[in-house]
Amino acid sequence: MSLDPIRHVISLLARLPGIGEKSATRIAFALLSNPKEYAHSLSDAVTQLVERIRCCSICCNLTEVDPCRFCEDPERDHGLICVVEQVPDLLAIERTREYRGVYHVLHGALAPLDGITPDKLRIQELLRRLQPESASEHQDGQEPTPKRQVREIILATNPTLEGEATALYLRKLLGTLDFQVTRIASGVPMGGDLEYIDRATLARALKARQVI
Amino acid sequence: MSLDPIRHVISLLARLPGIGEKSATRIAFALLSNPKEYAHSLSDAVTQLVERIRCCSICCNLTEVDPCRFCEDPERDHGLICVVEQVPDLLAIERTREYRGVYHVLHGALAPLDGITPDKLRIQELLRRLQPESASEHQDGQEPTPKRQVREIILATNPTLEGEATALYLRKLLGTLDFQVTRIASGVPMGGDLEYIDRATLARALKARQVI
Repeated sequence: MSLDPIRHVISLLARLPGIGEKSATRIAFALLSNPKEYAHSLSDAVTQLVERIRCCSICCNLTEVDPCRFCEDPERDHGLICVVEQVPDLLAIERTREYRGVYHVLHGALAPLDGITPDKLRIQELLRRLQPESASEHQDGQEPTPKRQVREIILATNPTLEGEATALYLRKLLGTLDFQVTRIASGVPMGGDLEYIDRATLARALKARQVI
Repeated sequence: MSLDPIRHVISLLARLPGIGEKSATRIAFALLSNPKEYAHSLSDAVTQLVERIRCCSICCNLTEVDPCRFCEDPERDHGLICVVEQVPDLLAIERTREYRGVYHVLHGALAPLDGITPDKLRIQELLRRLQPESASEHQDGQEPTPKRQVREIILATNPTLEGEATALYLRKLLGTLDFQVTRIASGVPMGGDLEYIDRATLARALKARQVI
């Protein structure tokens, strides 16, 4: 490899989200000024990450064990599925400690102009788990347990253009099936000040007002 | 290793400059959503970086070959040494295409409160190369070439508290030796607007005014 190792690492780092040429340069020199062991652990951790983490075959969460800890957890309500765009969204919902159902990770949101069409998202995987009478389960000769019978799908995609489009698309797609489809509430964030909330959010909060 | 690979890589990334917990999380998931090959090249590039890059034995620049390309270049003026804090400062000076001398990288600036005392910087290495009559060269039986005879040291540490302190310290230390010690000019940056320049910079620009 004739490429200068410093330039090489900078060009690779600069491809990461939120890291430009300048931060990449700063990171490269930080790697050189720290003890070598740190760079070696980082290098090893990055390899381990992509080698050991895969998609859960049920909910498409990123996981080391398949099925993932949510899908395997008998304590959770498998009749309630929360659909999110990305794994960090799932982690954010977990942090609320309010949700005891399971998840489905789409790995994106619809953005046809960027080439993200429904087939690019994990929608087929969602449909498959919503049909307990599917051929594969019949072949296993197993009856679906009542717990696996889905009662409600919560669409928790982001309240952005893409997230809303995805939620609408899924609602249409799932509308014919035999369970409730809900959408997380949008409105004024807790602790927010009406004066500084954007117009669209405030309009939504007004429209979705509830009797107290 | 029982640690979750995602958490592990996040905790390591979060130690890098300019990267907090949130950016580290974002990067970890970006590594997982890109093709595996990217993570492998990054991992390899980080290892190569720390294994192949070392300090130049003359100027302490970070380099793959020792001495570095500046110290080896016969076209450069080895009588002129520009002292910088870090390698990116050296690269910034190179980008001006105005400087044809050589460098000395201190790898930091004095900050006694943070434990960065003169012995933590590459000052001994600087003094050693400034004394052509040093014992080691006598043992080699080589006369110092006239080109290596240093005429001027340019102190190009940053115009910050630490950088100024370092420049002052070096001026005192080098003042007894037989060559000129200069400091890069501070003042209003080119293209800057006086209205928005901070007071200290403007004061310095006035004080250092020159006849035109």
